[in-house]
Amino acid sequence: MELDILVTLNANYLRPLKVMLKSFFLNNPGVSVCVYLMHAGIPLQDVDATARFVEREGHCLREIRVAEDWFSNAPASFYYTKEMYFRLLAFQLLPTHLDRILYLDPDILVLNSAEQLYGMDLGDHLFAAAYHDKPAVRQVNQLRLGQYSIDAYYNSGVLLMNLAQQRRDISDQAIFSFVEQNHAKLIMPDQDVLNALFGRRILTLDEKLYNYDARFFNLYWMQSGGQWTMEQLIHHTVFLHFCGKRKPWSPKYSGKFDALYRHYEKLALG
Amino acid sequence: MELDILVTLNANYLRPLKVMLKSFFLNNPGVSVCVYLMHAGIPLQDVDATARFVEREGHCLREIRVAEDWFSNAPASFYYTKEMYFRLLAFQLLPTHLDRILYLDPDILVLNSAEQLYGMDLGDHLFAAAYHDKPAVRQVNQLRLGQYSIDAYYNSGVLLMNLAQQRRDISDQAIFSFVEQNHAKLIMPDQDVLNALFGRRILTLDEKLYNYDARFFNLYWMQSGGQWTMEQLIHHTVFLHFCGKRKPWSPKYSGKFDALYRHYEKLALG
Repeated sequence: MELDILVTLNANYLRPLKVMLKSFFLNNPGVSVCVYLMHAGIPLQDVDATARFVEREGHCLREIRVAEDWFSNAPASFYYTKEMYFRLLAFQLLPTHLDRILYLDPDILVLNSAEQLYGMDLGDHLFAAAYHDKPAVRQVNQLRLGQYSIDAYYNSGVLLMNLAQQRRDISDQAIFSFVEQNHAKLIMPDQDVLNALFGRRILTLDEKLYNYDARFFNLYWMQSGGQWTMEQLIHHTVFLHFCGKRKPWSPKYSGKFDALYRHYEKLALG
Repeated sequence: MELDILVTLNANYLRPLKVMLKSFFLNNPGVSVCVYLMHAGIPLQDVDATARFVEREGHCLREIRVAEDWFSNAPASFYYTKEMYFRLLAFQLLPTHLDRILYLDPDILVLNSAEQLYGMDLGDHLFAAAYHDKPAVRQVNQLRLGQYSIDAYYNSGVLLMNLAQQRRDISDQAIFSFVEQNHAKLIMPDQDVLNALFGRRILTLDEKLYNYDARFFNLYWMQSGGQWTMEQLIHHTVFLHFCGKRKPWSPKYSGKFDALYRHYEKLALG
């Protein structure tokens, strides 16, 4: 099977990117991967080193270096960089022969096969994504973005993108206008845009499988009535997402997945 | 490199044994392993299935089925079974061409290469082993076995055995007499015998490398002045030992290495 992955990041995330990709390759044997690395200023030698890493694993990397003048009509500021639009407008920059692509944040471990997700019928949905079902979060986002009728606040760390549909239905101007009108209220700008403008056209994925928030093991365990144990997680969860500020590659990190992350990190980086 | 491993267990530990061995094979590439499975009553089909597992991994398994009448002169009781002598008297049952062997408990994950340990100069020591340096434990054992001048109470879960030296210096009668005289005081009989009779002839290994007690991550971290982080552990610790009653394969286990253990378990058992 062939599978396309999109990542958009800066040079600070190249090490975690390799860990994420290594875990993807290891747990998706028999899948041939093409990684699209979309960025605005990663040094050439770093891109080359990343490409060689991916090639040594038997896969390929394609660079999409976004030129200075792209999105020149987009509102940007000290807080919102142009990178925030990469995920939302990737369909404009990716090769037109791609009908779908799987966007992944670099702070993810891939523990199982992504084939079933990648092959799913998207209908006319623009994205497939998961939302983190925590009552407190839901309430805050209702207050913040309520005028856009948010039922669920989707996490933008894992997005299966229906590029064919996006090319037909998404306008960059609509996105730019939304940001201009709401910039004071936006906390995580790209995720807020995703939810406010496209929330109704997102196919919901099971977060336990496709966007497991590594901070909330006990919550998932309770919500599932004790079914979603560590064993279940290791056997079934596809994307384990290290959401939040504390990242597993930082020296002070500590948590239930510390050992597992360092294990994959060692496999990826030696 | 060729390396011989000794395991002594009953049928209840065959699943963890496979996990331990799988982690050994994965993290010791290029090492050809022969596993000696010493036991008193594992059903034939279970031994066969274990042998096939080891062979599929490219290694070999040899069964040493200990006959009923072995150690017939050994003191045994409801609490002390004959199996307690297997580790101590393995040198009598293993092929005479073996000069050394690495004994490993099945409740271990092997995270790094064991080659340096296996190749070390043992001099005329009978064993190499690590002791767990916890003040409380030391004091209790001093009181219990003090007449035998215990400085350190070695853990018997990882033992590099100097078989050549043991054949010269260990007498089964000395062991049997010790057990008869002290049976009321023995808590972990084989480990107590090891320490009381042979403690002075054990080469001390660094426990952080060769017998890391999975319950005490924070203690090791503090004792090492913050140096022995999870990253260090994953890169350098060879044997991670799940000491104590709570085992990582039990449904109720929870701890810092839960995810890592389930990861290897999945690789070993599917």
